[in-house]
Amino acid sequence: MTDLPPTDDPRRDGLATTDSLVLVNTGDGKGKSTAAFGTMLRALAQGWSVAVLQFIKAGDWKVGEEALGRKLGVHWRALGTGFTWDSDDLDHDRRIAAEAWAEARAVIGSGDHRLVILDELTYLLTWGWVDVAEVIAVLADRPSHTSVIITGRDAPDALIEVADTVTEMRNVKHAYDRGIAAKKGLDY
Amino acid sequence: MTDLPPTDDPRRDGLATTDSLVLVNTGDGKGKSTAAFGTMLRALAQGWSVAVLQFIKAGDWKVGEEALGRKLGVHWRALGTGFTWDSDDLDHDRRIAAEAWAEARAVIGSGDHRLVILDELTYLLTWGWVDVAEVIAVLADRPSHTSVIITGRDAPDALIEVADTVTEMRNVKHAYDRGIAAKKGLDY
Repeated sequence: MTDLPPTDDPRRDGLATTDSLVLVNTGDGKGKSTAAFGTMLRALAQGWSVAVLQFIKAGDWKVGEEALGRKLGVHWRALGTGFTWDSDDLDHDRRIAAEAWAEARAVIGSGDHRLVILDELTYLLTWGWVDVAEVIAVLADRPSHTSVIITGRDAPDALIEVADTVTEMRNVKHAYDRGIAAKKGLDY
Repeated sequence: MTDLPPTDDPRRDGLATTDSLVLVNTGDGKGKSTAAFGTMLRALAQGWSVAVLQFIKAGDWKVGEEALGRKLGVHWRALGTGFTWDSDDLDHDRRIAAEAWAEARAVIGSGDHRLVILDELTYLLTWGWVDVAEVIAVLADRPSHTSVIITGRDAPDALIEVADTVTEMRNVKHAYDRGIAAKKGLDY
């Protein structure tokens, strides 16, 4: 009998179990949100209650995921729709960010969901609109059955430190590089 | 008005469009298949017909995705269930691999699907059970409306060369490293 192939079967013997995990999908490549939505599908298939909180306005992309997610019973909230990106209006945007984070904190703390996806939260950390120490405190105090996935570029080191699993999506090659537009159904 | 944030909105102006794409998710990190299943969800949300062909037996993991995928109308085929991994039986395994690839070629060539996911195909290329030149020829000759996603570690250079978009999932940190078992609903 040869060794089993080096696929990504995540199961191993003799390991400790945990009630929940914190996962971070970061890096400049594609697939950070997409992998989170794939995990959402997996969690739904297990009968879990799932919440998705989007911290950046997605315009008309991710609308497909949202529609299908809602159809599958996901608690889906677009929290970043109010940002103006206007430097004259930074106080407004900071307030929107604080409100969005307060809602995320409440959703996590409620214990109503086995999985909470904080999509593109890292940008709010990068811009200093949400305090990473506050995020880490909420993750530490979360209900023991609630797993959290955080996506976005440039995840802060302190967040990587406390996460259980961190994946960097690295862009090896992209169709844009050859001047090809994103394709609806695949890229958004 | 400040610049828009560096999120992953894939749309840009002034680019060529294409009827379909070849995407490769490779690397040692998590999320290769998961991101493909996330894209499957996106494609389904657009009303696309989707096929998923699994080239490695998944045992009881990915069963959730399969059940939900089938429920959502995906043409889902587990083609790698017959492998013995027995070095005394290599001819048998080569034959199973050849049959699996023949089915994939037919599914792609049929034009019945806007998206065909060849999950963990790369392992069959690595072991020499399927010829990468043959795969590249089938991709080149595919119906113009059929996009293909190939997942698995160690994607051959020749495949990366012809793919439109290649993402490497890199493992920055994994719960296993701390002796924590994979979690059903998240990892499988």
